[in-house]
Amino acid sequence: MTAGFTAALLQAQTRISIHMEHRLPQTDLLHQAMLYALRGGKMLRGFLVLESARLHDVPETAALEAALAIECIHAYSLVHDDLPCMDDDDLRRGRPTLHRKWDEATAVLAGDSLQTQAFELLAREEVGPHAISLIRTMAEAAGKDGMVSGQMLDIAAETAEAPLTLEQITTLQARKTGCLIEWSACAGARLAGADPAPLRHYAQALGLAFQIADDILDIEGDAATVGKAVRKDEDAGKATFVSLLRLEGAKRRAQELADQACAALAPYGAAGDTLKDAARFVISRDS
Amino acid sequence: MTAGFTAALLQAQTRISIHMEHRLPQTDLLHQAMLYALRGGKMLRGFLVLESARLHDVPETAALEAALAIECIHAYSLVHDDLPCMDDDDLRRGRPTLHRKWDEATAVLAGDSLQTQAFELLAREEVGPHAISLIRTMAEAAGKDGMVSGQMLDIAAETAEAPLTLEQITTLQARKTGCLIEWSACAGARLAGADPAPLRHYAQALGLAFQIADDILDIEGDAATVGKAVRKDEDAGKATFVSLLRLEGAKRRAQELADQACAALAPYGAAGDTLKDAARFVISRDS
Repeated sequence: MTAGFTAALLQAQTRISIHMEHRLPQTDLLHQAMLYALRGGKMLRGFLVLESARLHDVPETAALEAALAIECIHAYSLVHDDLPCMDDDDLRRGRPTLHRKWDEATAVLAGDSLQTQAFELLAREEVGPHAISLIRTMAEAAGKDGMVSGQMLDIAAETAEAPLTLEQITTLQARKTGCLIEWSACAGARLAGADPAPLRHYAQALGLAFQIADDILDIEGDAATVGKAVRKDEDAGKATFVSLLRLEGAKRRAQELADQACAALAPYGAAGDTLKDAARFVISRDS
Repeated sequence: MTAGFTAALLQAQTRISIHMEHRLPQTDLLHQAMLYALRGGKMLRGFLVLESARLHDVPETAALEAALAIECIHAYSLVHDDLPCMDDDDLRRGRPTLHRKWDEATAVLAGDSLQTQAFELLAREEVGPHAISLIRTMAEAAGKDGMVSGQMLDIAAETAEAPLTLEQITTLQARKTGCLIEWSACAGARLAGADPAPLRHYAQALGLAFQIADDILDIEGDAATVGKAVRKDEDAGKATFVSLLRLEGAKRRAQELADQACAALAPYGAAGDTLKDAARFVISRDS
């Protein structure tokens, strides 16, 4: 059952959205474009920040800045990833991508500004005494040895002579999406100055499960429900967890990883139940 | 005479370049592209950081991180500004622009990663106890109310019905280039926890003088010396300080601003001489 998670996710979405409108008033086109990119997502990363903060009794004022910051980084990466020179996507979260809604220049600049905004939020006084640790780890997770390096690997894979091996695709995904998911889950512990190790183990399993589920959705989902184009990887002949493990093997691996994620939360006892629900949700979602 | 400045600039370039190679080893294409974008610039912003740090007895280890950080932000903004969907430039610093040397996707990602790198550098332990103040002001200077908003105004100006007024172009330039120059000059005071007001007044005059000199160069310079295409603004019918003030008026205004910049440094006495030389250099440069 993932009812506890869906209620908590909905609550997190509401709280982050209210905070978002507060921090980003719609004063001009740039602000509007940034908000457009932020809206309509699942806010899974922001939820992980709020939930891990709750486990460590971190004040809501601090947690909300970090939750919005990671959503800004995620949104910026999607906006740039959708550009014609990258994935060239027309649809995102069921709506036109930012460069289709406005133009490419606006998409480049709104993405740039969303990244800056993330660091501005983390540097606010509300974040408290451990802000610098969140900023440092965010930069490591998002930059040249984290998310962006994963995107570079992804582009290189498209023109590589041989499809990626399971090890290579695991590395690629750990960087491209895993680093930010890990940062999100560890944020609560870091905000409290506590050891993030259990949350890191949870997030590493969750991140990989999430990506395998994404590959399964690309095969089994339909564009209307998923909110973006599907079967692109298959059509492009790209190696995915499904092409490497086959559908049944991929589903089994996702389940194993969800179990590992739950086991890692043992130190938190029953307080970790919502995050356990999240792991079960991630492998059963339809969008 | 600006001999004191040119010697100090050369020394700053050397120190920042050595630090750059140290922080960014050429391990893969992404690192190579980031270094390519960083190299070959005047490093005026990095120089301002080092020189203001010297005025405040800030340790070299802290100042170098901040100097490299601002050069990363500047380089990222140039890489994205040169993209086909923005200014569509083939030449930068006398070499092919990054998307001409590699491709657009690499240019988008290297620019993204350079921005992240700037914040990673500012969050390093070497920066010391005032790091968060540098991060906060950097995000404000670079983001939606700073540099990026200036770039949005610049794009809007291209399709506006009437050319910009002097007040509008002053606002545009204060945001597009002024904010980062101001951050650079104030960095030394901030690193020391001192009042940045005199350096801010210096930088506000310097930044505007720099931009007026840029517009003059666009009319009087040649592409080989300047290192990028010239007379683009005139050809595009864009309002510039030269079109609004005429050549003689623009030169007179640049001189007045350089004098104001020097006057703002009075509290530093003779220790401020190199920064005064910098102001005189900025309005007399040929590239």
